[in-house]
Amino acid sequence: MSGLDRFVAEREASLVDFRRSLHREPELGFTEYRTASRIAARLHELGYALRVGRQAMVEASMLGRPPASQIEARLDRLQGDATVARWRERMPEGMTAVVGEIRRGPGPVVALRFDMDALPIAEADDATHLPAREGFRSQNPGVHHACGHDGHAAIGIGLAEWLVRDEARWRGTVRLLFQPAEEGGRGALPMAEAGVADDADWLFAAHLGCHLDTGTVAACATHMLYSTKLDATFAGRAAHAGANPELGRNALLAGATATLNLHALPRYAGAATRVNVGKLVAGVGRNVIADHCRMEMEVRGETLEAAEFMAGRARAILESAAHMHEVACEIARVGETCAARCDAEAVALVERVAGRIVGVDRVLHGAPLGGGEDAPFLMRRAQDNGGKACYFLIGSTLADCHHSPHFDFDERSLGIGVKLFAGIVEEATSSP
Amino acid sequence: MSGLDRFVAEREASLVDFRRSLHREPELGFTEYRTASRIAARLHELGYALRVGRQAMVEASMLGRPPASQIEARLDRLQGDATVARWRERMPEGMTAVVGEIRRGPGPVVALRFDMDALPIAEADDATHLPAREGFRSQNPGVHHACGHDGHAAIGIGLAEWLVRDEARWRGTVRLLFQPAEEGGRGALPMAEAGVADDADWLFAAHLGCHLDTGTVAACATHMLYSTKLDATFAGRAAHAGANPELGRNALLAGATATLNLHALPRYAGAATRVNVGKLVAGVGRNVIADHCRMEMEVRGETLEAAEFMAGRARAILESAAHMHEVACEIARVGETCAARCDAEAVALVERVAGRIVGVDRVLHGAPLGGGEDAPFLMRRAQDNGGKACYFLIGSTLADCHHSPHFDFDERSLGIGVKLFAGIVEEATSSP
Amino acid sequence: MSGLDRFVAEREASLVDFRRSLHREPELGFTEYRTASRIAARLHELGYALRVGRQAMVEASMLGRPPASQIEARLDRLQGDATVARWRERMPEGMTAVVGEIRRGPGPVVALRFDMDALPIAEADDATHLPAREGFRSQNPGVHHACGHDGHAAIGIGLAEWLVRDEARWRGTVRLLFQPAEEGGRGALPMAEAGVADDADWLFAAHLGCHLDTGTVAACATHMLYSTKLDATFAGRAAHAGANPELGRNALLAGATATLNLHALPRYAGAATRVNVGKLVAGVGRNVIADHCRMEMEVRGETLEAAEFMAGRARAILESAAHMHEVACEIARVGETCAARCDAEAVALVERVAGRIVGVDRVLHGAPLGGGEDAPFLMRRAQDNGGKACYFLIGSTLADCHHSPHFDFDERSLGIGVKLFAGIVEEATSSP
Amino acid sequence: MSGLDRFVAEREASLVDFRRSLHREPELGFTEYRTASRIAARLHELGYALRVGRQAMVEASMLGRPPASQIEARLDRLQGDATVARWRERMPEGMTAVVGEIRRGPGPVVALRFDMDALPIAEADDATHLPAREGFRSQNPGVHHACGHDGHAAIGIGLAEWLVRDEARWRGTVRLLFQPAEEGGRGALPMAEAGVADDADWLFAAHLGCHLDTGTVAACATHMLYSTKLDATFAGRAAHAGANPELGRNALLAGATATLNLHALPRYAGAATRVNVGKLVAGVGRNVIADHCRMEMEVRGETLEAAEFMAGRARAILESAAHMHEVACEIARVGETCAARCDAEAVALVERVAGRIVGVDRVLHGAPLGGGEDAPFLMRRAQDNGGKACYFLIGSTLADCHHSPHFDFDERSLGIGVKLFAGIVEEATSSP
Repeated sequence: MSGLDRFVAEREASLVDFRRSLHREPELGFTEYRTASRIAARLHELGYALRVGRQAMVEASMLGRPPASQIEARLDRLQGDATVARWRERMPEGMTAVVGEIRRGPGPVVALRFDMDALPIAEADDATHLPAREGFRSQNPGVHHACGHDGHAAIGIGLAEWLVRDEARWRGTVRLLFQPAEEGGRGALPMAEAGVADDADWLFAAHLGCHLDTGTVAACATHMLYSTKLDATFAGRAAHAGANPELGRNALLAGATATLNLHALPRYAGAATRVNVGKLVAGVGRNVIADHCRMEMEVRGETLEAAEFMAGRARAILESAAHMHEVACEIARVGETCAARCDAEAVALVERVAGRIVGVDRVLHGAPLGGGEDAPFLMRRAQDNGGKACYFLIGSTLADCHHSPHFDFDERSLGIGVKLFAGIVEEATSSP
Repeated sequence: MSGLDRFVAEREASLVDFRRSLHREPELGFTEYRTASRIAARLHELGYALRVGRQAMVEASMLGRPPASQIEARLDRLQGDATVARWRERMPEGMTAVVGEIRRGPGPVVALRFDMDALPIAEADDATHLPAREGFRSQNPGVHHACGHDGHAAIGIGLAEWLVRDEARWRGTVRLLFQPAEEGGRGALPMAEAGVADDADWLFAAHLGCHLDTGTVAACATHMLYSTKLDATFAGRAAHAGANPELGRNALLAGATATLNLHALPRYAGAATRVNVGKLVAGVGRNVIADHCRMEMEVRGETLEAAEFMAGRARAILESAAHMHEVACEIARVGETCAARCDAEAVALVERVAGRIVGVDRVLHGAPLGGGEDAPFLMRRAQDNGGKACYFLIGSTLADCHHSPHFDFDERSLGIGVKLFAGIVEEATSSP
Repeated sequence: MSGLDRFVAEREASLVDFRRSLHREPELGFTEYRTASRIAARLHELGYALRVGRQAMVEASMLGRPPASQIEARLDRLQGDATVARWRERMPEGMTAVVGEIRRGPGPVVALRFDMDALPIAEADDATHLPAREGFRSQNPGVHHACGHDGHAAIGIGLAEWLVRDEARWRGTVRLLFQPAEEGGRGALPMAEAGVADDADWLFAAHLGCHLDTGTVAACATHMLYSTKLDATFAGRAAHAGANPELGRNALLAGATATLNLHALPRYAGAATRVNVGKLVAGVGRNVIADHCRMEMEVRGETLEAAEFMAGRARAILESAAHMHEVACEIARVGETCAARCDAEAVALVERVAGRIVGVDRVLHGAPLGGGEDAPFLMRRAQDNGGKACYFLIGSTLADCHHSPHFDFDERSLGIGVKLFAGIVEEATSSP
Repeated sequence: MSGLDRFVAEREASLVDFRRSLHREPELGFTEYRTASRIAARLHELGYALRVGRQAMVEASMLGRPPASQIEARLDRLQGDATVARWRERMPEGMTAVVGEIRRGPGPVVALRFDMDALPIAEADDATHLPAREGFRSQNPGVHHACGHDGHAAIGIGLAEWLVRDEARWRGTVRLLFQPAEEGGRGALPMAEAGVADDADWLFAAHLGCHLDTGTVAACATHMLYSTKLDATFAGRAAHAGANPELGRNALLAGATATLNLHALPRYAGAATRVNVGKLVAGVGRNVIADHCRMEMEVRGETLEAAEFMAGRARAILESAAHMHEVACEIARVGETCAARCDAEAVALVERVAGRIVGVDRVLHGAPLGGGEDAPFLMRRAQDNGGKACYFLIGSTLADCHHSPHFDFDERSLGIGVKLFAGIVEEATSSP
């Protein structure tokens, strides 16, 4: 048994504990104060040099930041949490990025990205759901780690603990990028703009699950989709629905028409596309013509061309639906993801490493991610400066699909994840 | 100048004060604890016999009662209000009806109805809006007395004060019905079921405004519409909108399709109809197929037949939209209003009285109400037992139309209202 | 028995015959060559001075004229009909109006309007349908006298025959206006523009049926609706629906979206409104993105304001639906009706006359017409020049409602109609 | 120069002539009387044994056959065409399949499929369109060879002429399958059911164009889509849109709602899908509630699972839309295509042959077909009996995309097509 295997075996319980403590307190994008504070504190403890908040992200590039009131509400709820109290000043206005760096003499710079945020989904609460059964279900109502980022963050911390050990064989610089707000494609760009990936010789990111069982690794995620996230707000005119319906201008009819027609956008030959109006809130009461309608939507495309087609057509639909019902419409771009290009050298490196990890029994060259990701914003910065990047998938048998109330992953994949990243660092920095 | 004119002239300021204190703290249907407590306290002070809460309404007939949490939240906000503290025990679980009765020997029973609730509309906050300018704008965010029920309640209290005075000439029994939750057509039925109108020889109700200027009175409201209020809930299946859209069952598409098709219900020849989906809330986030959609809607019809046509077709549309998207649908009837029949004798009485009120310069036989009302549930109980009933309109020049953020009425109509009701009581009880 | 009663009794069979001959060969608006030729020929025979075609209508005011090919097709079908052959030259390009005038010395000018056109509805063909059973069902496939204009024309001819008899007591000038294309509101305006009603002291028009049983007459039609008829054409781009759907621009989706949203236009308080997309034709085949969509629609309103609201909103919806799907849109106004104002003197005259007609057992002051009419274009011209006008209803028990495949009226109303018009002429010209 | 090259060079003009004569008289599926007669006549002349009409197809498997009146109309138009006159008796009721067989001693059976039908699209008529400019534009109004099947048929005849020449080196049996009604996926199944492919050792089919330029060949068509073609008919109730809209049951609203929601079916992860409502015809006139609506639609999917998902959801949408508007709905399956499986041996054979054809400068292993095809019904019959099959693509630079009014292909690809098929026959029958 290698030192790494022994280390992971010994830390399995603490990995699971840390993951579950994050799972119990899931935090939405740009409000990950509890998560980011604990990560910063632990990295600091372990001796990592830190860049936090404004040092790690450019405020102007933060799309889709929640309103100040929501950030405040989160902080209010964390009142009394000593770790948060210590770090919150350095993370103003939702700037919750944490970058930890460690150096062992000259050598390549390896950047590794871990995301931290959860989703606005109510977690299941029945006995079939392990987090409910074992008592680590979300305590933050309506928020659920339904995409496994709690696992990603736990893997990052497990790795950080290993890298400082003498027995870990590597050299050069390792930079751990703990990213907020991956959901909605919002957190990577402001970190990329802050330059955290510019000098990376290697950059790796990964995702748990993705329809691969525990023990499988895919060295290269395919079918990543470009995406554009839009918020549309329709503003009409209220009127009494019984006394004077004709005086109203119905924002809900505009929203309903836009919703149907957005979903009816044509399929795109040769490139997968997606469209979803995922949230719609309109009106105040049944006897008033709805004077407002707020819609959260996204379009995706496998190619940039397809993605731009979808986004362009979507805007025309939103504007026309507003015009149709004589209401005003504001459209805000609140997030974006782009498709990754994995470098062959980096993919080969992941394949080599994965092939020798105990617990990995199947290594695929590529497998589909399906959804969008904003890690490519970081990958591109490295690639534009001559670095090599790769996004890989860590199989983990799931209780239910991503973004569902019953989503849960197999915690055995946490240790595998730590070993994969550790192996990657060793391999990437061992070459002459 | 008559005693009544003098009385009203002297009380004008206190009438306005009381109305403004209600306007400042508007309360939604079945949460009118502050309003109802103050009314109960004042009636008690004046010597009226009281029936409150369960004595004045039948719980089983309360459609569309808000969830317990909302009622509690209102009471929490009123913590520290001594009047509320004194009365709240007698008004359990949203049962905020107050009935005050006073007797002057034998004679007819005259029941008068005043409603008390406000609407879930954010009140305007600019200098063109008098309540904002003069400092009595709503302090209850998102709630606004946008239909003048604050005025109705103030008129009821002004009348109560007059009736106890020696100079007021009347005999028999006067019963003042302070009704909760007129909006949504929810409060009158449980009061009617409690029998508060059963023995009334006369029953009158009125509304301020309704497109008539201050100084105009219409003795009989026409074009009252039957209505049915429905809540529909669509339950689908969430899925990641990028990774597996086909696994989702989209409750929002069901809701949008239903909304469009409900509004597209055919016009009904020979009877005005209405339909409105006034509120729709669906989904959790842009990258998740919306698994729920909640809709608040209503249909109206000038005749019972037209109203039933609309309600029947609406149910078919809701169910079909659900089936179309393979989602479940639950439909709840949460409110109802019916059209009033005004008795000729009662209308004539109002015309006679209005014709001699100082401040009334124009008396119409009839004018349209336009919207729905639930007062007819009380009127019918009186009529079924041989009583005569009438719903009349008290003109009041409006700043903007009913149910709009800028709604405000002309406070000069408060005194006119008190004099009309006082005159009606006198006239109704003076006949041999 | 009066001379008129005797005359009608004797002519009953020939009235029915004439009506049935029209019913058997129904003709769409502006293609009534067979009907108009027979009418012109008979009037000529009886000694009426005739104005036909261009003498009776202004071409530039003909909205919604069918394409030349359709007019030609009708004439082709009538090849060999000697009467048509004699008159068709005087009715070029669909100008099928016929005006017959007769004079008996000085006196008032009385204009009477009769429409002649049928509807593009396939007539029922089962034994429950009297025209099918008795062998006078439509021989013009897809065209049906489903609104009784065959009856109107027959009444007009019956009247023409009476007026030339010595025993008919009247003086002055009677002008019979046989109008094409009432359906769609297209034929009255070009006749009005030709001045045929300008000097009328009295102008009367009537409709059979309208929910009144045989024997009932309503002296004044109410609830006439203003209407605007629009044709919309969406032009998109075809593409293979499998190979390249994204290259298409879908005109059918534009049309479907417009249809739903047009029907969802708000109800209008205080005035009945209507909207109907009655015909839609789109696309060429299932595997091609539809590149064209043609829609025939109309909006109606009880007041001019309501009608203009509907028409304005409808145009915005059509244009926005086109913009939404990136297709072009052309909107053509192809017809219009306006609401009638009946003069009190003329209504009173009809009431007086109806009251003494044998066969009329019930005379109402007013009753709803419900639909639109373009006779008011003629009425207004008379009224603008000081004449008095009235639109009345001749009850006739119906087999099924207007515009349905089983529509048929009670032929006993034909004689009543002749007597009513004859009585009106006598009364209108008898006053000193 | 090989004998084949010389043959093709000499016949180039006659190939083009034959193709243009088909282009000038395009015929819709199951009405290809002129095309099939000429092909049968020529094959007969050349000495092929023929199976025509009922000998080559099973009537019961003909989905989506046009109404008898349409087939008759086509034959009426061909009255006087001597070739048609000679063959039409053998092609009753739209059974226009022609199979020609030729034998050279023992050896493998090679079946080759060529389709013959055109599309209901009006061909472009401007100078930019070569067929218009050079005088071979469609003379059959509204019908256009917009998918190149005229080229397929010409290639088949060119091949037939080559195969009978002595210099053509092959042995065994060659069977040429001239198939009607590929559009709509209707003609292959009834031919397959007649057994024409059952004993084939090899079966090949091909398509011109498909986004590959002249000179390119793709040995295996990928992204073929399964498809299901549905016709839906909604039957409601007519009513006068002004007088009694509420009596109608609106089939057009059902159709419009279904159209929007069909197009809004979710994208399917991992498999391309398509949906198109390509044709919709509803209603009779603007003032009548539309009582019927006929819709032609199709769904497609890259996998059987995806195709079945689409078809299942589509049916639910159609039925629910009908229920929503209280109209009846009939759904007919009128066509179907399935995805092809190309056998590796057959693909390799095509690659080998293409690599040595003069005029082919680029050979791809695979390239997407994009649309649906029904050739796989024939391929499967061969494969189920142990034969090998392949569907390949013959590049041809296009003037505009498939199914567009300006579609036209590069006629240089005709000769290349003949040489490819000739080479395939030689190669397939040369092996020991």
